[in-house]
Parts: sequence; structure tokens; C-alpha cells
Amino acid sequence: MTKTQQVRLARRPLGLPDAQTWDLTTEELPALEDGQLLVQVHFISLDPAMRGWLNDVRSYLPPVGVGEVMRSLDIATVIESRHPDFAVGDAVSGVFGVTEYAISDGRGVQQVDLDVAPGPTWLGALGMPGMTAYFGLLEVGKLKAGETVVVSAAAGAVGSVVGQIAKAKGATVIGIAGGAQKCRMLTEELGFDAAIDYRGEDVLRRLRELAPKGIDIYFDNVGGDILDAALANLRRGARIVLCGAVAAYNDEQLRPGPSRYMSLLVFRASMTGFVVFDYADRYGEAIDDISTWLADGTLKSREHIVEGGVAGFGETLNLLFSGGNTGKLVLAL
Amino acid sequence: MTKTQQVRLARRPLGLPDAQTWDLTTEELPALEDGQLLVQVHFISLDPAMRGWLNDVRSYLPPVGVGEVMRSLDIATVIESRHPDFAVGDAVSGVFGVTEYAISDGRGVQQVDLDVAPGPTWLGALGMPGMTAYFGLLEVGKLKAGETVVVSAAAGAVGSVVGQIAKAKGATVIGIAGGAQKCRMLTEELGFDAAIDYRGEDVLRRLRELAPKGIDIYFDNVGGDILDAALANLRRGARIVLCGAVAAYNDEQLRPGPSRYMSLLVFRASMTGFVVFDYADRYGEAIDDISTWLADGTLKSREHIVEGGVAGFGETLNLLFSGGNTGKLVLAL
Repeated sequence: MTKTQQVRLARRPLGLPDAQTWDLTTEELPALEDGQLLVQVHFISLDPAMRGWLNDVRSYLPPVGVGEVMRSLDIATVIESRHPDFAVGDAVSGVFGVTEYAISDGRGVQQVDLDVAPGPTWLGALGMPGMTAYFGLLEVGKLKAGETVVVSAAAGAVGSVVGQIAKAKGATVIGIAGGAQKCRMLTEELGFDAAIDYRGEDVLRRLRELAPKGIDIYFDNVGGDILDAALANLRRGARIVLCGAVAAYNDEQLRPGPSRYMSLLVFRASMTGFVVFDYADRYGEAIDDISTWLADGTLKSREHIVEGGVAGFGETLNLLFSGGNTGKLVLAL
Repeated sequence: MTKTQQVRLARRPLGLPDAQTWDLTTEELPALEDGQLLVQVHFISLDPAMRGWLNDVRSYLPPVGVGEVMRSLDIATVIESRHPDFAVGDAVSGVFGVTEYAISDGRGVQQVDLDVAPGPTWLGALGMPGMTAYFGLLEVGKLKAGETVVVSAAAGAVGSVVGQIAKAKGATVIGIAGGAQKCRMLTEELGFDAAIDYRGEDVLRRLRELAPKGIDIYFDNVGGDILDAALANLRRGARIVLCGAVAAYNDEQLRPGPSRYMSLLVFRASMTGFVVFDYADRYGEAIDDISTWLADGTLKSREHIVEGGVAGFGETLNLLFSGGNTGKLVLAL
């Protein structure tokens, strides 16, 4: 019998999740049945989207139920298998949840090659954030060489990859991030052409200075005032890729939308939402390209790894909403 | 010498234009030079977009300057010509402005065939509103047969044509308009499948009832709460076509944008702005289709013609902002 510690949703939060939101439970897992595998989790992905899963609203995924183990994507090792596709010792990714051990029927479980990149990178540049950056920028945004790309939350898991892919494809890239340190990292380590510190600078004015001909693609991870600042600085035919709105995820009420949305008309521009799961059958393409860029140094994966047990999940998650992480936030067990 | 009465922009309005906004002036036109034509104006088009031209802001057209004759599209007759392409007696459309007579160099002046339709229709279904409806719905919205189309300001010049083209192309069409009389006109005269009276009904709830599977195309002429109601009722892959935001045209400050814009993400939807002038080289296609539909009764042109001199311009224009017109608003001289 395997004992596992897990984090369950105790109650739906209003605003920022806190200690009341989560229950730490211990469970004994049953013996495996045919077609199942047992995994030991090593790395848990922490994502802004998790906040949305806590609300009882219709969305692209059903909400996590009260009392259920919190949903998460993990990197794990198969430690027992009665499934024909998985052997003991395989490294895999899967939606096992915030838990130390889990039983799976193999659905949605992917082999990951730790010779290509270590586990945390399979949750970052080679995981959902990487897929989101790749398909959002290239398929939804339809990036062309020579264009000007602006990305918000640029030091985050998605934004840091968006900017680097855009550079690899010949764009001029401006990142927006919070704090001088993150901004320095963008220009000095990740090759961004410029960075704007939204905590200390007037984003609307700085965008006008840095992109005097306007923005071709704005990859939006945050919403709020920064989205409006981008709307005020579009170029004709611009595309806004809506990836998230972390600024609003903990709001109890809908906040006002982008006042400047009618810029879309003036600039013949579009604002398009997408959900990365729609591209699942094409992740292979993205993984091929991104792993090539990782290998040749074109793209650097940045992970922010917090060591600790599953008990640290709630506190670590909130780093996403305080801007406390740089790169992909991962909980290492 | 020809004397002409004209309406000039006296001062830029804050909010709704009023008597202070306009100057009525009389001018003697000089003798024609080579390459010019003199026209007598019969019908002046009144458009919500005119309000935008009064603001001193960067947009798809330069603002009308203080002291200048107010810009308008007119239907006129050539009464004198020293231009090789135009003869006395030709019926033409052109941006002659709010004036009784005008001299033109022929740029942007089009012949109109009054055997195909009377003058006011060339400002409506066969004019800019018709072009806007046609390219907005078919090119920007990419309408497919069997889809559900919702249009706001549905009894207006653009909206009434949008709904009828959508019906002609095999869509289910829901119109949103102000007042029971307009709504009856949509369903009983123009063939809409349903109409919602935004003054008396909860638009969000009614859309949910009338389009339980969601909206494929929302053609937005108004912005505001109605745009939010549509955002809350999208179908996966929906397209919002941004044509205008008449609800906000007289605002002195930017009002909050659509709070529910993140629905674009959940529904993998897009919101795209356009300006009809970009399709100028394809107006012929639209005129061919629309005149065929007018001739066979598929499409009915609705014009709201106000008789009077140019002095009535200001008061007549404001009917657009009080919802006082049904169909294309035209000032007949």
C-alpha cells in the first residue's frame, strides 16, 4: 500500500486563495488494477490558470470540485505498472494533481525524455507554457519576420518563451515586466530588444517611444491597464493574442474591460482568444522546434523551483499573483 | 455665380452636438476651372461616424477642421462640367459636404444609376452602409450558412442590411433594436428570425434563450452593455465584427470597455475592427449582389428621409443618437 499526501480544494476562495482554501490530506492508494500505473511525482507545475479552475463557472475546463485533489500537471516516475504502454522507471508528464503519488489509467500521460531536458523544463519551455507561447505567437498571432512584438508578464513562464521565439523568428521584441531585475534579465539574458518596468514606468508612453510605428502583435498575459496601453499603440492590422488576464484572476467581480478596445476598429486590428489544448495534436512540432532552440542556445528556459512538500503548494501558488516568480514556477517534491 | 448655403463646424462639441456646434454660412462659388464640375446636392447622408470626425483625434480619417464645411457623402446632379468624365445631368455620389452646391475635381465621385435605385438607396443599401454590412459580415465575419448572427442597431442603416444579407446567406438572424415598433419591423418586414427590444428586455437573458447554442457572429454597432451581453453568449470560434460604438460616441471620457472580453479566450473567439474604405476596390461586387437582392425582393432598403434645407442638418443628425431613425437617415434638400 502506498500512502500519499495531497492538497484538496477545501472551499472556493473569494479573491486570493489562502490557508482556508486548501486541505492537506493523506490517503492510502489501492492496489493497481489492469491498465493502471502508479507514479511518484517529482515536480508540480504552478500556473495562473489554476486560479480560474477554483471558480464555479463554465470555462474551457470544468472547475475543480470542493473536496477534490487540486488539478495540476506533474512530472513523475512510473514506479509500478499494469499498463502496456508504461514501464517502471519511465519519466512521464500527466495531470496527476497536487499529490506525492497517484494512480492513473494512462490517459493524457506522455513520456518525457530527460536526456533532452530536465523535468522542470518539461513543465516550462517544453510544457504547457512553451506550447502556449508557440501556438499563440505563431498560429494565433501569425508572426512575420520584421514585426514588432510586445509581451506582458514577459519574465513569466509563457512570456519569456514568447519573446525568445519571436526573436528567433526575426521580430523586434519588447517585454513588459515588474521590477528592474526582471527587466534586466529580459534584455541581458534572454535577448529582448527592450523591457518596460510597469511598476516604475508609464507603459503607454514607453511603448510609443519604443515602437513609434506601432505594435504588430501584443501577446497579453495580464489584461488591465497594460492591455489598454497596448491598444493605444497598435499598428494597422495588429493582432492581440489573449492568453490570460492575471491582473483580474483574484477579482470578486468583473472589472471594467479595455476602454480602448475601439482602437481595434481604427487600426483594423483583432483580439483573439485561444486555449492551448486545441493544439494538442501538434505539440510534437512545437517540442521539436523548442528543443532544437534549447540545444543550440537560441532559447533559454527559466524555471523558478521551490523545494518542499505538497504542503507548500498554496503559498507557492500565490507567488504567481504577487509577481514573485521569474520564469516557470515549479514545486519540487 | 452660384450661391450655396453650407453647414460648417463652429466648435468641437463636448458630448452631444448642439446649436453651438454648427454655423450656417452662405458662400458664392467661383467659376469652374478646367477639370472641375459643379454639382447640386439632393440628398445628404447622416452617419453615426460623423460624430467621430468632430473630435480632434487620430483616426481612420482626419477630423473635420473648425471652420470647415461639415464632411458628408451626398447624392447630387452635375449642373456644369469642365471635367472629361462627367456631363451635365449625371447623377453622382461624392463627399461634397453639407452644402447645396459644390465644386469638385472629380476625385471620389461615382456615377450612380437611378434606374437601379433612387438616390437615397445609393446612400443606404447601395452606399456606405450597404458596403459596410456586406464586407463586415462576409469578409470580416466570414459568415457560413447555418450560423447564428446577432446584429445590434438592427433597425439602422447598417444593421438592417446586415440582417437581410445574413438571411440571404442562410443564417439564423437575431436583431437588437430599441422599441417594439422597430422590433416588429425587423421580424415582420425584413425577415429577421427574432428581435430583442433592448429598452424593455434583458438582452443577455434573451440571447441565451434565442441562441441556446451560442452566437457565431455578433455584428456590433453599439458597444456598451449589449456588446457584453453578446460576449456572454458566444459559441466556440465566434467572430465579433466591430463596426461602431454609437453608445459611446458622445462621451467626453473613455467609458469602461467590455468587462466580459475574456469570453474571447473561453470561446476561442475573435473581435475584429474594420473600416469599409479598405474595401473600396471591391464595392462593385457588393453593389452587384445587393442590387440583385433589391430587384428580386430578397433585400428591402429602408430609408428615413427628412425633408428640409441644410439648416436642418444638426437637429437631424442627433436623431441617430436618440434612436429616432429607422433605416438609413437622409436629409433631402
